[in-house]
Amino acid sequence: MTMLSRDQIIAQITPMFDADRVRIDAATLQSHGCDYTRMYPVDPVAIVFPTRIEQVQTLVRFAHANRIGIVPSGGRTGLSGGAVASNGEIVVSFEQMNGISALNTIDRTVVCQPGVITQQLQTFAEQHELYYPVDFASAGSSHIGGNIATNAGGIKVIRYGMTRDWVAGLKVVTGTGELLTLNNDLLKNNTGYDLRHLFVASEGTLGLIVEATMRLTTPPQHLTAVVLGVPSMDGLMKVLQTFQQRLDLTAFEFFSESGVNILTEHGVQRPFETPTPFYVLLEYQKMGDADDRALAAFEICLAHAWAIDGVISQSETQFQNLWALRENLSETCSAYTPYKNDLSVTVSNVPGFLAEIDDVVAKNYPNFVIVWWGHIGDGNIHLNILKPEQMAKETFYADCKVVSRQVFQIVQRYNGSISAEHGVGLVKKDDLHYTRPQVEIEIMKGVKAVFDPVGIMNPGKLV
Amino acid sequence: MTMLSRDQIIAQITPMFDADRVRIDAATLQSHGCDYTRMYPVDPVAIVFPTRIEQVQTLVRFAHANRIGIVPSGGRTGLSGGAVASNGEIVVSFEQMNGISALNTIDRTVVCQPGVITQQLQTFAEQHELYYPVDFASAGSSHIGGNIATNAGGIKVIRYGMTRDWVAGLKVVTGTGELLTLNNDLLKNNTGYDLRHLFVASEGTLGLIVEATMRLTTPPQHLTAVVLGVPSMDGLMKVLQTFQQRLDLTAFEFFSESGVNILTEHGVQRPFETPTPFYVLLEYQKMGDADDRALAAFEICLAHAWAIDGVISQSETQFQNLWALRENLSETCSAYTPYKNDLSVTVSNVPGFLAEIDDVVAKNYPNFVIVWWGHIGDGNIHLNILKPEQMAKETFYADCKVVSRQVFQIVQRYNGSISAEHGVGLVKKDDLHYTRPQVEIEIMKGVKAVFDPVGIMNPGKLV
Repeated sequence: MTMLSRDQIIAQITPMFDADRVRIDAATLQSHGCDYTRMYPVDPVAIVFPTRIEQVQTLVRFAHANRIGIVPSGGRTGLSGGAVASNGEIVVSFEQMNGISALNTIDRTVVCQPGVITQQLQTFAEQHELYYPVDFASAGSSHIGGNIATNAGGIKVIRYGMTRDWVAGLKVVTGTGELLTLNNDLLKNNTGYDLRHLFVASEGTLGLIVEATMRLTTPPQHLTAVVLGVPSMDGLMKVLQTFQQRLDLTAFEFFSESGVNILTEHGVQRPFETPTPFYVLLEYQKMGDADDRALAAFEICLAHAWAIDGVISQSETQFQNLWALRENLSETCSAYTPYKNDLSVTVSNVPGFLAEIDDVVAKNYPNFVIVWWGHIGDGNIHLNILKPEQMAKETFYADCKVVSRQVFQIVQRYNGSISAEHGVGLVKKDDLHYTRPQVEIEIMKGVKAVFDPVGIMNPGKLV
Repeated sequence: MTMLSRDQIIAQITPMFDADRVRIDAATLQSHGCDYTRMYPVDPVAIVFPTRIEQVQTLVRFAHANRIGIVPSGGRTGLSGGAVASNGEIVVSFEQMNGISALNTIDRTVVCQPGVITQQLQTFAEQHELYYPVDFASAGSSHIGGNIATNAGGIKVIRYGMTRDWVAGLKVVTGTGELLTLNNDLLKNNTGYDLRHLFVASEGTLGLIVEATMRLTTPPQHLTAVVLGVPSMDGLMKVLQTFQQRLDLTAFEFFSESGVNILTEHGVQRPFETPTPFYVLLEYQKMGDADDRALAAFEICLAHAWAIDGVISQSETQFQNLWALRENLSETCSAYTPYKNDLSVTVSNVPGFLAEIDDVVAKNYPNFVIVWWGHIGDGNIHLNILKPEQMAKETFYADCKVVSRQVFQIVQRYNGSISAEHGVGLVKKDDLHYTRPQVEIEIMKGVKAVFDPVGIMNPGKLV
């Protein structure tokens, strides 16, 4: 792509940054040249650590003039290869731009540099008696910039929405080095296309997010967790409806008995004695007559056998223990070399969709164990297939590739999404057509070209 | 633009539609060739009334091939000239595509043709024990398609957001006649740029909205209205904070004493004896201990003199009467030939912003009466300047044009928006630069060209 040698590039970009902020040592190239995926070659030309927006602009103008790829790097927790540099790109790590400022308690907004860690923002909000509600397993390392670039979701979406819903304004540097200030942090601004929404979930392909004004809200109070044992997915949907009609749920998660089995092998206690095919974990705020409403919903579910056992948290410890069931699943399963997929359909389609995938896997790979979990209230389910102990990794991955195609065909039939919250990146780029028809992919390419005419922003990702 | 004569166009498009669905009589051309604005020439070549999506596609392909402008027409309640055809365009009225179908009570979604009237959707939702929360003065005539194309807001935004937040999926016909099905009605779908959000507020410039899946929600219960008399805007912000910390407000509106004065001239009773410069109307759901919380907030506001009088609705009639104060304002003021402007800043900037505009008008036009109202919880204020009785319309409008420039300069200084919810259309096109810098306007033009390469979709509007 570029006419410059690696040495020339390094020589020219080094003066753009603070001392020791351009790194070319093998360890940094390796660590910062990729995300959580480990299946792509890692070969960046350099990792740069800007401390100011102007440095980012200078770099992008240089990269634009010389046709050098730019890969953004946040907390490197991505599962889609969105932050992998395989072809001599310059990686822009936002680790050094991690400040929170300008808290406005009337607007309930705060200005974040892109390298602010999600949990850092959560803690900051708490310290000011406010709440940042986007939360997920990697919140302790993921960056706000990455959250926005991938529209991160997580466990509170049913009540609070995705990252998209908390972005009041953005500063971005486009593929030509222009700095755009999008939406001025306004709640209402109908002055043409909302380019802020275009940058959310753009995976670094339109430009770099260099600042974000994030909204905060009132903290939830007195959260209560309920875990229910559910015999069928159809029943599970009835449980959702029954509770949703009576309570403003702050979470509605599910997981399968196969997952609880694995947890118990690792010393975790079952929530109650009765094993059931599925479990629901729901959460609500204990306000007014909420407990009475929850109990009424529970009784209706028991009476119809939509749920057959259950437990309500009576203390903070019990609350934490119930949540631990759901939260430990991902980590516990990772010991089994899982093949993971992050899918969504409309909520009402979940039971049929899940049954079809179960069927296909059971028919073709009877020795595969599926662990399901996810955010049923959002139609988002995480499919995890565990590698049989005696099977070679290579065989397992090859088989899973076949499973993927079958799964994606089912997704397509249900008009679902091949990526509910993890994004497309490199991992699902070739499968994008299962969710987005070719005409839309062409339009996306056209839109990208408006912001990034020479195609240097996160090249090869998404489109 | 086109090489075809009007007669040729009419001859070619007539067979594309059902019998009597292409109208060229003067009355229809006039009525359907414009929106609520009355300041532009009205000169469409024909008004067409499609009944099916394929008809829209056929028309757009023809218009694309022959370079003929297309203007979308909904309920024609727009205040920005977004649906005006002044240059021989074909107007596509969606009046005949007004069906609601496919209610899904689990997903709480419903499929609307673009010509569904906002109130029709509200009523439909009510009949099914659900709720469509976007509501505003023209809900009785405005169309869902137009609501989406302008991202309509209104009086419940503080609790429920704008139209944008209720669009689960869209079918659109682009400027080349392609039919796109955007987002598949999914809650979570991170597969690249969310083109649905690009179409929301695009004012018909990217394509035509031909179907929308709208979300519904749980109806609010036992709404209570409170009207407070507030001596200053600073106090008003404290009132907002005090109530917002204690209650999940479903509305927080304000209006000025000048407005109440006019209402009383038309036989409306004051909410209470004490006149104050500003009034707040807030609304909450009477659930749990909400009344106690409201009372506590009220007492705090009185103690600090942020509010000096107030009334809480004790019956449905009183509730309706309190709301009537706010809702009658617009209609009552319209008798005074008002110059209207729809502005927004961040919430915390409202007092300073409003004071500066008051100052500028008072200094330069001491005989102008300003009536303020709006949605303070969203930072959205409606500026209404009443024409002095003895002043000629022409003089008044000329003066207001000068005021506009001064107001927009203040908007720009506050990083605000020259159109919070009405859109840009023709009315504010030349002023767009006060909110969107030239580089963004150029990007918008680039994005438009991706969807509408020959520039036939609502030509001359927005960008």
